[in-house]
Amino acid sequence: MKHLVDLDDFSLEEVESILNKAIYIKSNMSKFSNAMSKKIIATLFYEPSTRTQMSFQTAMIKLGGQVIGFDNPTNSSIAKGEDLKDTIKIISEYADIIAIRHNLEGAARAAACFSSCPVINAGDGGHLHPTQTLTDLLTIKETKSSFSNLTFGFCGDLKHGRTVHSLVKMLLRYKNNKFIFISTDQLKIPDYIKKIIIASKNQFEESCSLENSIDKLDILYMTRIQKERFKFEKTAFSAQKNFFKLKKNTLKKAKSDMLILHPLPRVDEIDFEVDSDPRAAYFRQAANGVFARMALITHVLSAPNVENFPTVTINKCCCNDRCVTNFEKYLPKRFIKNKESYFCHYCSQKLNI
Amino acid sequence: MKHLVDLDDFSLEEVESILNKAIYIKSNMSKFSNAMSKKIIATLFYEPSTRTQMSFQTAMIKLGGQVIGFDNPTNSSIAKGEDLKDTIKIISEYADIIAIRHNLEGAARAAACFSSCPVINAGDGGHLHPTQTLTDLLTIKETKSSFSNLTFGFCGDLKHGRTVHSLVKMLLRYKNNKFIFISTDQLKIPDYIKKIIIASKNQFEESCSLENSIDKLDILYMTRIQKERFKFEKTAFSAQKNFFKLKKNTLKKAKSDMLILHPLPRVDEIDFEVDSDPRAAYFRQAANGVFARMALITHVLSAPNVENFPTVTINKCCCNDRCVTNFEKYLPKRFIKNKESYFCHYCSQKLNI
Amino acid sequence: MKHLVDLDDFSLEEVESILNKAIYIKSNMSKFSNAMSKKIIATLFYEPSTRTQMSFQTAMIKLGGQVIGFDNPTNSSIAKGEDLKDTIKIISEYADIIAIRHNLEGAARAAACFSSCPVINAGDGGHLHPTQTLTDLLTIKETKSSFSNLTFGFCGDLKHGRTVHSLVKMLLRYKNNKFIFISTDQLKIPDYIKKIIIASKNQFEESCSLENSIDKLDILYMTRIQKERFKFEKTAFSAQKNFFKLKKNTLKKAKSDMLILHPLPRVDEIDFEVDSDPRAAYFRQAANGVFARMALITHVLSAPNVENFPTVTINKCCCNDRCVTNFEKYLPKRFIKNKESYFCHYCSQKLNI
Repeated sequence: MKHLVDLDDFSLEEVESILNKAIYIKSNMSKFSNAMSKKIIATLFYEPSTRTQMSFQTAMIKLGGQVIGFDNPTNSSIAKGEDLKDTIKIISEYADIIAIRHNLEGAARAAACFSSCPVINAGDGGHLHPTQTLTDLLTIKETKSSFSNLTFGFCGDLKHGRTVHSLVKMLLRYKNNKFIFISTDQLKIPDYIKKIIIASKNQFEESCSLENSIDKLDILYMTRIQKERFKFEKTAFSAQKNFFKLKKNTLKKAKSDMLILHPLPRVDEIDFEVDSDPRAAYFRQAANGVFARMALITHVLSAPNVENFPTVTINKCCCNDRCVTNFEKYLPKRFIKNKESYFCHYCSQKLNI
Repeated sequence: MKHLVDLDDFSLEEVESILNKAIYIKSNMSKFSNAMSKKIIATLFYEPSTRTQMSFQTAMIKLGGQVIGFDNPTNSSIAKGEDLKDTIKIISEYADIIAIRHNLEGAARAAACFSSCPVINAGDGGHLHPTQTLTDLLTIKETKSSFSNLTFGFCGDLKHGRTVHSLVKMLLRYKNNKFIFISTDQLKIPDYIKKIIIASKNQFEESCSLENSIDKLDILYMTRIQKERFKFEKTAFSAQKNFFKLKKNTLKKAKSDMLILHPLPRVDEIDFEVDSDPRAAYFRQAANGVFARMALITHVLSAPNVENFPTVTINKCCCNDRCVTNFEKYLPKRFIKNKESYFCHYCSQKLNI
Repeated sequence: MKHLVDLDDFSLEEVESILNKAIYIKSNMSKFSNAMSKKIIATLFYEPSTRTQMSFQTAMIKLGGQVIGFDNPTNSSIAKGEDLKDTIKIISEYADIIAIRHNLEGAARAAACFSSCPVINAGDGGHLHPTQTLTDLLTIKETKSSFSNLTFGFCGDLKHGRTVHSLVKMLLRYKNNKFIFISTDQLKIPDYIKKIIIASKNQFEESCSLENSIDKLDILYMTRIQKERFKFEKTAFSAQKNFFKLKKNTLKKAKSDMLILHPLPRVDEIDFEVDSDPRAAYFRQAANGVFARMALITHVLSAPNVENFPTVTINKCCCNDRCVTNFEKYLPKRFIKNKESYFCHYCSQKLNI
């Protein structure tokens, strides 16, 4: 079975093949309008995310398939105490493919372990959101000829933004890219990302001014300051929120072919007047979400069986308290060995031994 | 792009053509079962209304199309702070047609401004509900040969009932109709409707007794006293609620071919024993909602591009505090000039200058 | 019109024919993939039950049909005060078949009275859940050659478990079965079930130990202790919950071809290690829910018109305070006469005269 839990599970060739297919689908939609005829996708959204759910639904419908699913955990068997394993075992008999969104980290990997059909990770807590990354890559690929020799600016909440972390990790698999992380002190990119960049011998710098950095960028990736992260600190939120705003004026210094991306929804970090700038690519990016998912669905449903991960079982609890293994107790404690360290198979957290 | 925000946007010929098509579809369903094949309707219900949403879904499915959408704003990107413009720009790339229901007045017009696909107004606050009016007209047209020379009685909550206001305005475009408004003092038809009727040289009268007025009517349009309008006044609600009830006995004085309409849901303003009376048309009317929407969907999706409204931009805020422009601040302040007055392009409110 | 409100409405031949069809469909899916083309099922879930709703949706989609519906009564016209009768009259014009789930007992029968299309009872309060029983029967039939000469063990909450009551009643229509009811004192099988068994000259016994009874069983039907039944008695719930758990060890004494069933969701009454035992049939049972419903849908939609029940109208209120007739006041007070007793036509409660 082929799943998409983490883009790291896919070879670069495989990712490129999905992106090329997405580009082909975009200009040959009618050829794919029956590709998934009689097939069903189950969109299991334990955490609501209307946009992502609608883009999966649209992708499946445009492939000629059908949709079942839920978006409200209080209405589901989970409310009666059912665990993830049972739900997945049953729904994977109903559907041909599952897209799962979950509040716990590692939940998509756990689901893949028990599913009799392919599982796509539609976001697992703060951990991964690989279909967003595919969408980002598709939008870059349409404009820039390759994913190498580019300078990427990431601006906004770089601490919590999992779309940023995923995209950076993916771009490190290409050559000679440079990263500029533009944020306030409170919302800086995490150290573990910096370490990966250093280990990969790529370059990065940190900046606290969008205005001072914008002229160097080939791609500017803006993100939303997520109100839900500042639940009890309204003043902190306001302070952060107003710090970085992309205005028409700021763009004067930018390259004429710089690409402006944003995973959306935006709140007000990009001014409306920027929307009509030819460099603004975020609405095209949102539309691309459907094509990327169409390509992905056809890919996983036609892919040959793949081998299991070479994991080891260690009788230790994952130290990430948002990891699915700390809630779904029946899950085997599997870890992946990398040099002398062990990483949780589900949520990727390093094991403290 | 052809939208249906307000029936006033359509010529009388266009309205008649939709109604004729609906009548044709009703007896030739199989001819239309693939008319919208591979097309998607997005039902964006910012305010829940199961019945209306299901009738749009049924209409699209019976045309061979598919459905995406939401009915719960707390689950959507809006909860993360996204404005209407961004939502519409993105969803109109996913779908071929949008049906929007919104709590704010003018929201459907605002959506149409930014959509890359046709928008149908499925109710915008207390403002308009044009697909209900189409349904009402269809049910009348099936029985009476024309929309002229008829006496219409409207009974119940005439103050808040937007279906009443819409239907009256539409009927004024035909000739020689008479209106009898039957209500309590508290729920009387608004003055602006009376003024339009006077200006159009049609006749109306007000009544406080259904029993005394029923013998004159060709059509009786009953409405529900909306509990939600009396949130903090339970006694007021009870008093109003019990005032007008249509019973079998009351019908004795009515014409033998009088048509009884009701936009439904009813609470208890029409007694159950009336249901079996041949004059009771409200269940047929509800079923007609599907045929009217089928005709409308095919109409807007096949209509040629139309010109924009001739609006003027004035730097003044709309004085309707439920108008979408007072919430979605980026909307251009557009007004329509009519003689010496200006009316909000979105919610139709007259501008005070 | 053919409805499925109660399996008692169907002859044994009819039930067998549905089960045989389900078995045939299961191995000939592609032959049925357009059987319900252009048809719509409305899933009206007044009480949420994601799994049951998804299995109806999947069944209809796999038959080539389409789905409308709701799962949240607060979003529906009901919230505006509409009664069941009006909702059903209207939705049965939109859809070709209705699956209704309701919190009130007898609601499915009431719906069938007013529907212009077939109605399937997807659970009405604590009363009936016939599609679950069909699913149970299908799973038994696939393994055991007949429904006769078997010993059935029912374990867990036998007081509230309507799936148990329904299955027992159904099995009494076959010959020479024996029943062992395994529960605590608080959750014993109701007396009226025991009386039916005695009247039918079948045998039963009661047991308070799964371990002591398991060796006699051909089929073991486990049930969940329903937390929602112990709302205000947390300690009582915990005490009951831990009483019966099926573990791998317990199975050692069981027959090698004993079938383990569970209507799911399970909480922890069956240990995970049992899942891999070849006797564990509950996941196959859950998957069978789709095939049973596919067979049922094709059956009711192709069945000839059937006669109405011979009911009598008596001017007495049903004494079951969860009966739909005590909420939907317009319902005619119909009863079925059986010897000298009268039973509510809707909820089956015996009338006290």
